Amino acid sequence: MKITIAQINPTIGDVEGNLNKIELTIEKGIKDNSDLIIFPEMSILGYPPFDLLNRKDIKEKIENSIEKILRKNYPIGILIGSPYYTSHGIYNSAYLFYKNTLKRVDKFLFTKDPLLQNLYFQCGKSDFIEFNNHKTGIFIGDDLLQCDDTTPLQEYLYQVDLIIIISSSFYYLGKRKEKIEKTRNIARNFNKKIIYVNQVGGNGELIFEGGSFIISEKGDLIFEGKNFEEDITTIKLENLSVTSYKKEDISFIYNGLILGVRDYFRKSGFEKAVIGLSGGIDSAVVACIAKEALSQEKVLGISMPSIYSSKESIEDAKEISKNLNINFRILSIKDIFYSYLKELNPSPSPVMDVAEENLQSRIRGNLLMFISNRENYIVLATGNRSEALTGYCTLYGDTAGSLEVIGDIYKTTVYKLAEYINREREIIPKNIITKAPSAELHPNQKDEDSLPPYSILDPILTAYVDENKSEEEIINLGFPKNIVRNVIEKVEKSEYKRRQIPPVLRIRSKNPLRERVLPLVYKII
Amino acid sequence: MKITIAQINPTIGDVEGNLNKIELTIEKGIKDNSDLIIFPEMSILGYPPFDLLNRKDIKEKIENSIEKILRKNYPIGILIGSPYYTSHGIYNSAYLFYKNTLKRVDKFLFTKDPLLQNLYFQCGKSDFIEFNNHKTGIFIGDDLLQCDDTTPLQEYLYQVDLIIIISSSFYYLGKRKEKIEKTRNIARNFNKKIIYVNQVGGNGELIFEGGSFIISEKGDLIFEGKNFEEDITTIKLENLSVTSYKKEDISFIYNGLILGVRDYFRKSGFEKAVIGLSGGIDSAVVACIAKEALSQEKVLGISMPSIYSSKESIEDAKEISKNLNINFRILSIKDIFYSYLKELNPSPSPVMDVAEENLQSRIRGNLLMFISNRENYIVLATGNRSEALTGYCTLYGDTAGSLEVIGDIYKTTVYKLAEYINREREIIPKNIITKAPSAELHPNQKDEDSLPPYSILDPILTAYVDENKSEEEIINLGFPKNIVRNVIEKVEKSEYKRRQIPPVLRIRSKNPLRERVLPLVYKII
Repeated sequence: MKITIAQINPTIGDVEGNLNKIELTIEKGIKDNSDLIIFPEMSILGYPPFDLLNRKDIKEKIENSIEKILRKNYPIGILIGSPYYTSHGIYNSAYLFYKNTLKRVDKFLFTKDPLLQNLYFQCGKSDFIEFNNHKTGIFIGDDLLQCDDTTPLQEYLYQVDLIIIISSSFYYLGKRKEKIEKTRNIARNFNKKIIYVNQVGGNGELIFEGGSFIISEKGDLIFEGKNFEEDITTIKLENLSVTSYKKEDISFIYNGLILGVRDYFRKSGFEKAVIGLSGGIDSAVVACIAKEALSQEKVLGISMPSIYSSKESIEDAKEISKNLNINFRILSIKDIFYSYLKELNPSPSPVMDVAEENLQSRIRGNLLMFISNRENYIVLATGNRSEALTGYCTLYGDTAGSLEVIGDIYKTTVYKLAEYINREREIIPKNIITKAPSAELHPNQKDEDSLPPYSILDPILTAYVDENKSEEEIINLGFPKNIVRNVIEKVEKSEYKRRQIPPVLRIRSKNPLRERVLPLVYKII
Repeated sequence: MKITIAQINPTIGDVEGNLNKIELTIEKGIKDNSDLIIFPEMSILGYPPFDLLNRKDIKEKIENSIEKILRKNYPIGILIGSPYYTSHGIYNSAYLFYKNTLKRVDKFLFTKDPLLQNLYFQCGKSDFIEFNNHKTGIFIGDDLLQCDDTTPLQEYLYQVDLIIIISSSFYYLGKRKEKIEKTRNIARNFNKKIIYVNQVGGNGELIFEGGSFIISEKGDLIFEGKNFEEDITTIKLENLSVTSYKKEDISFIYNGLILGVRDYFRKSGFEKAVIGLSGGIDSAVVACIAKEALSQEKVLGISMPSIYSSKESIEDAKEISKNLNINFRILSIKDIFYSYLKELNPSPSPVMDVAEENLQSRIRGNLLMFISNRENYIVLATGNRSEALTGYCTLYGDTAGSLEVIGDIYKTTVYKLAEYINREREIIPKNIITKAPSAELHPNQKDEDSLPPYSILDPILTAYVDENKSEEEIINLGFPKNIVRNVIEKVEKSEYKRRQIPPVLRIRSKNPLRERVLPLVYKII
């Protein structure tokens, strides 16, 4: 049997555009003599659609699309994910079109879903569909992978000849391996081939990896699609041989972020990005990603020196812009800063408190937003995850922007990204990488005046936030008690800031809608 | 039987503090010769706790509290809501302590809950508990009220003598009537008395109303607790007579917002609020609420005139401050504005575009944040719901702050609040109420230059956002097609702003975690 894996990148809500893409892809499958073309979960509407599901016009457009595909009487099988509207609710369904017949399977598991599917969808029930003399078990999203011994699937799985999973599973570090391993186990245990087709693309905060794959009856990986790009591939199922899967290295994060930025702009109809270039590593890495995502002439870097900025910082910002061939400007915040102090301080000279530090950061935010408003740029914010989690950032200042590109990346990983970017030639000047991180908001300021070294901070944050470890457990890992307590306090006390930072491209958080789900106000320690 | 309704205001995460409050309340119940004292859902931990539920130290504190209450061997029955931790998950439970025995019932319905309980809790099962020779049916939260014909409760409900609901049900307009009517129906249908005890207090965005009540077997309201304040009342069940319930008028919104602001400050340990006083009605109403919530000496109003501000605006701001007896300052943004233009414009005179309008608003945001940082104030933002939904606001400008006090209130309702505030004497100067709304960011600017009149805008927004009506349905209500289309476009295109505005005190949205749940990027129309 010839199968076309249609790993496409739909735009949420763009039913006409998605249908057009789907039809072109079907034509390609027909040209390739495919028997069955498989699209991801929710391909017609895009995923996750949230409240768009409840819109009448969306419902009509979807129903028209389904009918349109059916009327075309395509000579091959087409498996495609779409909502299914009934009088008693909406289902997340898979439609199998074959000539003039239409069959359907509905997704059944939702309760622990961070994308809130349980608020929108009714629970369906898994079933197999007869196609091409194959009893085909069709699963949507994580339905099969989340099943455990308590789910009465055993018997059903033994009956099918082939298993197909259509999915729109968002990316986070490590999920891929977990997913492939689980699928391999199921294939082996039930002695079935499993085809897994995933959505690709950036959708707001979420990045969908693609990386569709096929596992043999013996549990071997026998096909792997491209990561972070569309991939339409027709293969003869019987001809595939064992392959080893790509290791998830730093290039995954890099390519994922590029896709996230590119689709954020493309799907929202914007073209140009402006970035505050401090001369530090975070903004340099963001500039590299933006250039890859958008092309050099669409990116503008701005150096905004304060009275405390070193000459070096401006030079470093200039150099990275030159290396990337992006546009570059310098705007001083000095006179503006003094004009505020004249209004706010007893004498117009700085007193060097936190209020003045934040003020300088906010003047920079204002300048970027001004250029955004006047010249139609989108501001990309450059904060990293270590800063966001400890609240080492200024609301409306360095957090100003429409998207936090590396907001889910720990500082220590930002260094690895810089290394990766420099793998062939020195794009990010060495000086930017080796100098001590500083916000340059008071004389000789260094990040380490306020935070533990990132090599200690990041593992503590990982243990506390990502691994849900308690203070005691983290101390037992060998970190000093006072530092651990101090970091935890910083995290807890800065929740209010994270409520107002821009959306963050997610590559780490399992809950992509919010960094952590905490009450806004609670007794902290 | 004598019952004590313990409508208390716990602080989320403050297990020791809440236990202390609970123990003092129990002592009062004992002094009143009560047989049974009833606390709300999740009283020991506070509600909603979100990820705090998963913290080990919280689990230990809760288990210790339960044991501590049990060991006290109180001579009366105590019904109290708390998480129940097991090796296979957490339950949202009701504990009945009586002398040295402890019985438990677990909440069972979660799937459509906007507060994401299904992500944290296992599903339990309703049951009755024998107490004082009464078969008592105990329900938690919306368990009983959400039941329909498909839930097999009928038989069980006929068996009990008395029904008790312990709840932590957040407030929104109209919910109260709905809740009481549903409860009356159940009481009547099953011929049972129903006691409903609700949490009170502000918890971040959420306001819990209290308003505990008792319904007779005939479906009559026979007791109603206070709204928006703690209320510990002991009553003899047999002695109650029919009463009519309080009408939900504008005072509910006013008192709810006061409670929300007061608890936001109290529970987060802050004392002082700063508010930008534009001379308009929104900031005037917020100042009145802040004064009621915090007392006059804790509130600071700041007038920040621009080159386009009328003298009148400063006078109006001064007058409302005087009427409220709050602190008042004037900070001009003129020189600061020109210092930006010197850096950004070809010549330092204004060109009067949107970038300059937003800049002025952001300078004001910076000034407020500066005072917040230097003098330890919390900035209260003053935007209303009509503005937030249409994006008629400046990110980091008028939206700067920790809390949007009236962000869930339509402009037309803001006028009603002003009227209510002035019910006894003119606190808000008449001129503030009668003049045309303006942001004063360019010469002679009026809101109606950019928006339809609020008397048309608000009903369209209500239909579109709150009632989920389609464009066509709204036009059919009698609104002009071009205006409806324009408003819908404004709402859809400003989603990115709502992602970054401060948390909003919720009195209208049924989904309190986000204004609307939409993808960040999608094909808009």
